Amino acid sequence: MKTIKTKDEMRAVSAKLISQGRTFGLVPTMGYLHKGHISLIESSKKKCDATIISIFVNPIQFGPGEDYDKYPRDTQRDIEIALKEEVDFVFIPESKEMYLKNHLTYVNIEKMDKVMCGHFRENHFRGVSTVVLKLFNIIKPDYVFFGEKDFQQLTIIKKMVNDLDVDVKIVSCKTIREPDGLAMSSRNKYLSEKERKNAAILYNTILFAEKEIKKGCKDLEEIKKECLEILNQNEFIKKIDYFDFRDPETLDECESAHGSLHDILIASAVYIGETRLIDNKVVLL
Amino acid sequence: MKTIKTKDEMRAVSAKLISQGRTFGLVPTMGYLHKGHISLIESSKKKCDATIISIFVNPIQFGPGEDYDKYPRDTQRDIEIALKEEVDFVFIPESKEMYLKNHLTYVNIEKMDKVMCGHFRENHFRGVSTVVLKLFNIIKPDYVFFGEKDFQQLTIIKKMVNDLDVDVKIVSCKTIREPDGLAMSSRNKYLSEKERKNAAILYNTILFAEKEIKKGCKDLEEIKKECLEILNQNEFIKKIDYFDFRDPETLDECESAHGSLHDILIASAVYIGETRLIDNKVVLL
Repeated sequence: MKTIKTKDEMRAVSAKLISQGRTFGLVPTMGYLHKGHISLIESSKKKCDATIISIFVNPIQFGPGEDYDKYPRDTQRDIEIALKEEVDFVFIPESKEMYLKNHLTYVNIEKMDKVMCGHFRENHFRGVSTVVLKLFNIIKPDYVFFGEKDFQQLTIIKKMVNDLDVDVKIVSCKTIREPDGLAMSSRNKYLSEKERKNAAILYNTILFAEKEIKKGCKDLEEIKKECLEILNQNEFIKKIDYFDFRDPETLDECESAHGSLHDILIASAVYIGETRLIDNKVVLL
Repeated sequence: MKTIKTKDEMRAVSAKLISQGRTFGLVPTMGYLHKGHISLIESSKKKCDATIISIFVNPIQFGPGEDYDKYPRDTQRDIEIALKEEVDFVFIPESKEMYLKNHLTYVNIEKMDKVMCGHFRENHFRGVSTVVLKLFNIIKPDYVFFGEKDFQQLTIIKKMVNDLDVDVKIVSCKTIREPDGLAMSSRNKYLSEKERKNAAILYNTILFAEKEIKKGCKDLEEIKKECLEILNQNEFIKKIDYFDFRDPETLDECESAHGSLHDILIASAVYIGETRLIDNKVVLL
């Protein structure tokens, strides 16, 4: 396994892989790797001749007052995990290597980047789209692997790739969960023991909504009201950013589950104590 | 010469050129080719093994009330010119081939796209950056050729390429002019005979400003005032959008010519009758 710190070196490795006719996959991460990332790596290793992971805590996707500074980092541990998983290359640039001093260019996926998490995290998704497109341009992977846990991110990246004719295939991978249902996330580390024990409430409420949708008796407004009640009753939930029913492809809000022409994305963001957690599930109709 | 209408066919041609190890250049145009375009084609032919021109009047870079509908088009003549110039491929997609029905993704080069022409043509430059990035992604050229006549466009594209790590080299080519100094432009066709005879006033005023800067006696504010007077006195000039002195790299406004640490871009946009013309010159200091 080779660790790469500069764009130039990364470009040289990519050019060599291309000239050898080897397909290669990219798993973009912000490090602090967990089983979710490992499952992305496994997907890439199954599909591609070589696998690259990038580790970069992207400053431009964090807003003022968000957790950029305290975002968990443990490069040594990450590299050991990558080694164990037989990753071929780890691209781990510094911020000043990734961005010019006077960076001005941003990719905006309009409408989609304003709803759900985008409504609460201004400029978050333009930061994500911009860094992801930069990684695509530097690394030129055949396949890129994203987890469904960050469903809005996945939808936005797919839209960007289609709209801008980017020559890459996006592979979405199932959310990996703890035994109690909590979705794996680097931010779970922030939870106190008590908060952690209660954190599965988010996924359980999403499962409750799914069950109610499938029953087909109540309208979505009613189900949403019940879900908000469940969440509000839990003493560890300090704030609910949203609990939404949306079209998984366009992220438009669903009016009604009855006769819906598409599947329904149930997505939510809540604060357990100080920690913002997100989760989602697509109900296949 | 081959004429290509679909992205898929274009991608196949590009892949073949790459696999053959041939370098190739792209000359992006909106058609209605003139000597300015031909000089870009000649530059590409000198530098590259193969040359592709794209012809696409890009709807998203025109604002409401602008000349998208009446923009001059003559595909047959364009193809004859390309043939005569021994272009290898002409990519000429329709609008519905280039854009998905629900296109949402735009590339914004902040600050730079708000000044000069960007101040008067809202969303113009995000339309340009977006289509140009799409063309880069579809065609994957080694070199792309832009004229200096659209200087702000050139500066913005260079900035986008640097900021987004796009793997392409931008080549800027000198503005081609009519014998009286008028910069070649497809929009010159809009000018009446009388307007055409007076249109060189724009470039002559820019040359006057250059001379005054080089003399070094007056400050930029004074020179600007004199230039605006010259333009205002011409009965064919119906409106002056701007007459600016700027840093050619950042497009920041110049405070003073004395002791400037960079060259000075003189750039202007005026209406001759109903026709909006732009021109510029970089003063090397």
